[in-house]
Formats: sequence, C-alpha cells, structure tokens
Amino acid sequence: MNMQTKDDRDKFHRKPLQVKAAQQLLAAYGKPGPIETVPLEESDGRYLAEEIRAPHPFPRFRRSGMDGYAVRSEDTASAGSDRMVWLDVIDEIPCGSVSGKTITPGTAARIMTGAQVPEGADAVVMLEMTELREHGGRMQMGLKRSIEPGKNVTPIGFEVQEGEILLRPGRRIRAGEISVLASFGVHRVPVYRKPRIAIFSTGSELLTVDEPLQPGKIRNSNTYMLASQVREAGGEPFILEAVMDELPLAKAKVEKALQEYDAVVTSGGVSVGDYDIMGDFVRSGSVDMLYNKIAMRPGSVTTAAVKNGKLLFALSGNPGACFVGFELFVRPFIQQALGSEQPYLTEWTAVLDRDYTKVNAFTRYVRGSVEARDGVLYAIPAAVDESSVMVTIKDSDCLIVVPPAKEATPAGSKVNILMLKGNRL
Amino acid sequence: MNMQTKDDRDKFHRKPLQVKAAQQLLAAYGKPGPIETVPLEESDGRYLAEEIRAPHPFPRFRRSGMDGYAVRSEDTASAGSDRMVWLDVIDEIPCGSVSGKTITPGTAARIMTGAQVPEGADAVVMLEMTELREHGGRMQMGLKRSIEPGKNVTPIGFEVQEGEILLRPGRRIRAGEISVLASFGVHRVPVYRKPRIAIFSTGSELLTVDEPLQPGKIRNSNTYMLASQVREAGGEPFILEAVMDELPLAKAKVEKALQEYDAVVTSGGVSVGDYDIMGDFVRSGSVDMLYNKIAMRPGSVTTAAVKNGKLLFALSGNPGACFVGFELFVRPFIQQALGSEQPYLTEWTAVLDRDYTKVNAFTRYVRGSVEARDGVLYAIPAAVDESSVMVTIKDSDCLIVVPPAKEATPAGSKVNILMLKGNRL
Repeated sequence: MNMQTKDDRDKFHRKPLQVKAAQQLLAAYGKPGPIETVPLEESDGRYLAEEIRAPHPFPRFRRSGMDGYAVRSEDTASAGSDRMVWLDVIDEIPCGSVSGKTITPGTAARIMTGAQVPEGADAVVMLEMTELREHGGRMQMGLKRSIEPGKNVTPIGFEVQEGEILLRPGRRIRAGEISVLASFGVHRVPVYRKPRIAIFSTGSELLTVDEPLQPGKIRNSNTYMLASQVREAGGEPFILEAVMDELPLAKAKVEKALQEYDAVVTSGGVSVGDYDIMGDFVRSGSVDMLYNKIAMRPGSVTTAAVKNGKLLFALSGNPGACFVGFELFVRPFIQQALGSEQPYLTEWTAVLDRDYTKVNAFTRYVRGSVEARDGVLYAIPAAVDESSVMVTIKDSDCLIVVPPAKEATPAGSKVNILMLKGNRL
Repeated sequence: MNMQTKDDRDKFHRKPLQVKAAQQLLAAYGKPGPIETVPLEESDGRYLAEEIRAPHPFPRFRRSGMDGYAVRSEDTASAGSDRMVWLDVIDEIPCGSVSGKTITPGTAARIMTGAQVPEGADAVVMLEMTELREHGGRMQMGLKRSIEPGKNVTPIGFEVQEGEILLRPGRRIRAGEISVLASFGVHRVPVYRKPRIAIFSTGSELLTVDEPLQPGKIRNSNTYMLASQVREAGGEPFILEAVMDELPLAKAKVEKALQEYDAVVTSGGVSVGDYDIMGDFVRSGSVDMLYNKIAMRPGSVTTAAVKNGKLLFALSGNPGACFVGFELFVRPFIQQALGSEQPYLTEWTAVLDRDYTKVNAFTRYVRGSVEARDGVLYAIPAAVDESSVMVTIKDSDCLIVVPPAKEATPAGSKVNILMLKGNRL
C-alpha cells in the first residue's frame, strides 16, 4: 500500500496563481505559427495571416444604385408635377457593360442596377418614376420630378479607398470576410497553419467510448470534448492513446508528443492523490513547471509546464473543470498561434438572474446561459455546477465570474461574464 | 433596344409580404431530412437526428469527489480539535477499481477522486485533513473533525437518472454534447444529412474571383459568401456555374438543380430591370411563386418559388441584401431540414447605441455590432448600411430591426435585434 510521504505533503502546499497571472505567464509561448495558402473556398473558419489592403477603390467605377435612367441632373431642374421633362434615350447599359456614349444635354441612357454610370451623367432616376414615348422617331423618357446631383449613383471608393486596410492578420474568416476577399480577387488566401494539439487522457479507470461498461470504471469523455474545443478554437486536435497510471510510460509519451505537436493537453492526474501521474510528471524535472495551482473553481489543480518552448497543459480530469481550464488557458494559446488580437474570451457585465449561493475563497467560473430582456443582459447560473458535473456544459453560453466571497451573491448583482464561443445565441 | 412593356409595369406592382408571413409560407417546405450515422469524432457541428436517453444513471456508482479516505461518518462523530479519531486503513481504491472490502466500524479505505466508494462507507474525508501513523502493526489514519454523512460522495444518478432525456433531435453537437455522448457510450451518432444547397449567381457582369478585372464588371462575391453562410447554417453548399442573362439557359440550369439538390439559392436578377432573369424565370410558369416582394430593407425584391416541393430562394444581388435574405429565409429552411427547434435567429431587445436616422416605410434590418456595458446590451448600427455595401457584413454581430418610421430612431431607444450566428463575441 502506497502511503503518504513528505512529497505528498508538498503537493498540498502549492502556491495558487490568479487566472490572469497564469494567462500572462502562458502568453510568452503563444506566437503566430507558420503560414500556408488555401483556396478562397477552403478558407472558411481559418485565420488570416497577412494584412489585406484594397488593390483598388470599391466601387471601382461610379455605380448605378437603381434600374432606371442615367441623366444630367441639371436637365431635370425644370421638371415638376405639371411639367414633364423629356430626354432622348441614347443608350442602354446592362451590368458589366461600359457605354461608349456621353450623356450630353437633353439625353439620357437606360441603365441597370450595378452598371457603370456613363460619362456626362451625374444621377440615376428610378425606372418607376419615368414614362416612355416615341417622339419624332426617337425614344424619349419623361419625368415630372427634378433629380439632385449624385442621386442613386454610388461614387468611386464609397465603401473602400484604394490602399485601405480591409482585413488584419489574425482575423477569423467567415461569410463577411469571404465577401471582402472575393470582391478584391484574393482567391488564394494566406492563413496561419492550424496549431496541432495533442490530447491525452490519463487514468486506467477510463474506458474508450465503444467499450462495454465495467464496474468502477467510466468512459473517457474529456478527450472527445477537448478535441471539439480545439477545433472550435481554430486548432487541429490529435487524440493520442490514453496515458496509463505509470510514470515512465507517461513521461515517454508526453515528451514525444511535446516534440511532435505544437502543444500537449492532458486531462486528469493533477490532484493530490497517489495516482496523480501528471503531477508526478511535472515534478519529475522533465519539464519546467509554470504553475500547479490556480486560484479558481473549478479546476484549482490546473497545471502548466514548458519544455523546449512547448507548452504542456495538464487540466483537471473533472469534466467541468477540464472544460473551463481549456477555455481559460488552452484556447488563448491556440488563438495566439493564429495571430488573434483578442485571444481571450469576451468579457461582459451582466445582471445575475438568480441568487448564487456558493461561497469560496477562490474566484468561481460558473457555467451559465445568457438572455437579453428589455435591453438588460441576464446571466443565469446552471442549477448544478459542481466541477465534476458534465451535463451542464452543453447548456452554457458563458462563464459567470463570481469573485471570492463570504456571502451569497444575490440576484440582481452585476457580474462579469466570459462569453463562450460555442454559445447557442 | 429593349423598352418598357406592360410586363415591366406589372413588375412594379408587386404585393409586399411581411418577413414573418414569408417565413411562415416557407416553413411548409422545411422538413427534417434523411438520417445518417457518423463516428463520434466526426459528429462535431452536426445535428442530432434521434433522441438520446440515458442508458444508465450518471454517475453509475457512488463516486468519491476527493482524494482521501472513505469512512463511516458516525465513526468520526467524536472527533474534535482536541480529540483525534484513528481508523484502521484496510484498503486502497484507485480509480477504476472496485474494493472487495466493506468499511466496518473503526475502519477506512484510502480512495482516489472518481473512484467507487466502498460498501459501508458513507463519506470521504479529504487527504489534507488527515494524518497517518503506524500503530500496533496497522496503518491508521487520524482526523480531528467530524464528517457529515454524504460528504464528498456523489450519489448515483446525481447528474442524470436512468432513462432521462439527454439530448433531443435537432440539437447542434458541440463540445458539451460530445461530452454527454461519450459519457454514455454513443460512439456512432445518428445525425441529419446536411441539406445540399445549390448556389448560383446571375448576371454577365460577374467575374470569377481569379479573373483579371475588366471595365464595368465586378467580381462575384455573393456565391462565396452564401457558401460560407450555408456551411455555418449546417448545410452543404454547391457552387454551380453562374447563370448568365439568358432565360432558356437559366431555366434549364435552375430546373436541373431543383431536381438534384434540396434547395436552390440564387443572387441577383430579381429587381425590375430588363435583365432581371430570376424575376422573368419566376414569372415564366416553370415554378410556383411564393412571393416576389418583402416589406423589408434591404432586399425588398427578395423572391421565393417552389417546384415539386423544392424551394428556390432568389435573393437580391446586392451583397448586404443577399446576406440578410439568407439569414431571414434560407437559414431557417436549412435549420428545419436539420430538425432544429429554433430555426430562426435569436431575437433580443437591446438599447440603440447611437441615432439611426434613416426612415422607411418598410422594416429595416440594419447590420450592427453588440456590446454589453454595466449589464445593458447595446446595439451599434454600422456607419454605412446601404444594401449594396459589402464591407460592413464582416463586422456584424446582429441585425437591428428598425420598424417602419417617419422619424429617426434616437440613441437610447429599445430595439429588437436578431443575433447572427457568425457573431464575434
């Protein structure tokens, strides 16, 4: 039987670090990674690696905002409800065509939405406001209202000036970014390579998801959950064979992974028990420990270490704590490797929707949902938020930050919340 | 030269439908599609197709919440700061093991976090609260505090009772759902097949993204943007060759696509100009028109039609209007095909952060960002929100719903907002 030793006792006297201090320590290791180029169609969800500037103004030409007639506004000055002005229609300009004609006094050109406004014209009159007639062998359009200069004409560079910065590096590419890239002909997109994250679970109590149940054992769920979180954060997850409760084996596996991947994430084995393999590993001298206690709940045993500039995140094995540990520490690393300007979760202030009665000496990150009612943002803590509880993760939009407190936090209090990216809004 | 006809005039007299009425019309065609099964590791982002019930309670056994000693709480009743109680340590229970021993009066067992609490014990005392000694050849643990029954023991079914519904069909699978599925051994996941959406752009003014610029022409950006939106909504996009401005050709292509795909989305060609091919197509009798005008800005010309139960969404070619039309009409269809219970964008109330000065007879869907400050949710309209404007799409978290108004909407007003899924929170 394995009994307590002095080393065991040392485990209890870990020095807790504040979350932000831990994030700062880690930030030294998060640097944008190598760049690769992907076709625009495959750039969805990737992170831009270079600044994109406008190679030309947008629009590039004076663009008609309406279907109608391109006119000289001064020609319409005398029009009124009792006085129809007639102009000769000298051309028809579909989208994509450029008129060879110039609009001279007394003339107009039929023009489509999006087409280039012809020389001489300075306004477009809506088709619905016009009439058409044949007069002396010529087609004429008539209108009863005067049109101000510039009406329905989008000027050159209205949206974007030439040389303007369109997108900065680190920006996640979604529908709006794709629209920008396509509009400016960026068909090969420079993106950061997805950081490759190795994931291990520890503990011989873990069954794989397709194994039959056995007494006392539980199924490994954290590695699958972590893989999903890695993907959502922009990384590429690699689930490696579970690390069993044997130090030399675990050491060899983790060290190899630290060489081959951009970072290693483990779950479990970091508390104070005899089988806390990751704790033992971090103390073994094989890696340099950054911290092994965080002043937070859940997951105070969350540990990090570094070897040859590569990070090892040893998260708690409790599903709730594992989830939170990823969001607070691993996600920022992945985001930094993708050049993100805002690697941390967005922090907002919300109104607590119901009493939160737990008290703690550490800051608590409580899973919760959010809801806006009448302009007020409410944060609703999950009914059960034990660190070991797994089922409430799926219903969480945010983490409610409950500072160390000796008393319950009543409903109506202002609380900081960290918005989760995988929210269900 | 193509001139105005009676048919042109008819185009102007479209009957505008309210957005919600249009959504109701479309809802008749959105039904959950076929089911397929994917490995858990590939289920990320997919939509669950069957109800998942708990095959067993969770936890399945009385689980230790701490590293420490499993005890009979009554044995500790007499412990106090001046009175140490000593218990014989009769076993050591790592995670995944089941003890063959029963904790009888005067005994305890060393136990790890997550391990099954042995018979006889009803509480776990933290390792940090204990001392260890050898006494008369036996190992004993001592403590100076009494422990209440149930302390640090998670009861069977604490999180989930057997038979409880864990996840309902239509639920998007993210990290939290994956954790649930893994925990209950669902390694093959039934999901709805991604609806296959054909995407066309119309108009001969469009250059592909890798073509050199030509006078008067613009690059096709909408199809790439739509493909990204389809993916985000849970569908599978297929970009088909652009439909040129020729009715018989367009008709053949769109009809073929309506047969082969679950729905067809086009951008452009729906306004009142002579080259408005999708308008002509919808009027051609080849499909049954559902509507060809919506009481909204941007995108009032947004059109939908049906053929053999398949939907054709003919969106505006203006990028802003195309984006909004997708979010209001196409996204719900895709979500319905995925069994989603909430196919529409989440509607919240926020406080308008600055004056919105445009007035309109139609409801306006203004691109905006959101921000919570001191518990209040603010919606910030984009500086430029012309329907033709593309650059502000990328910065939008929401659509601000500005009802028909004769006057500007001042800062501080309560406004409804539709949260965009691709938000940057």
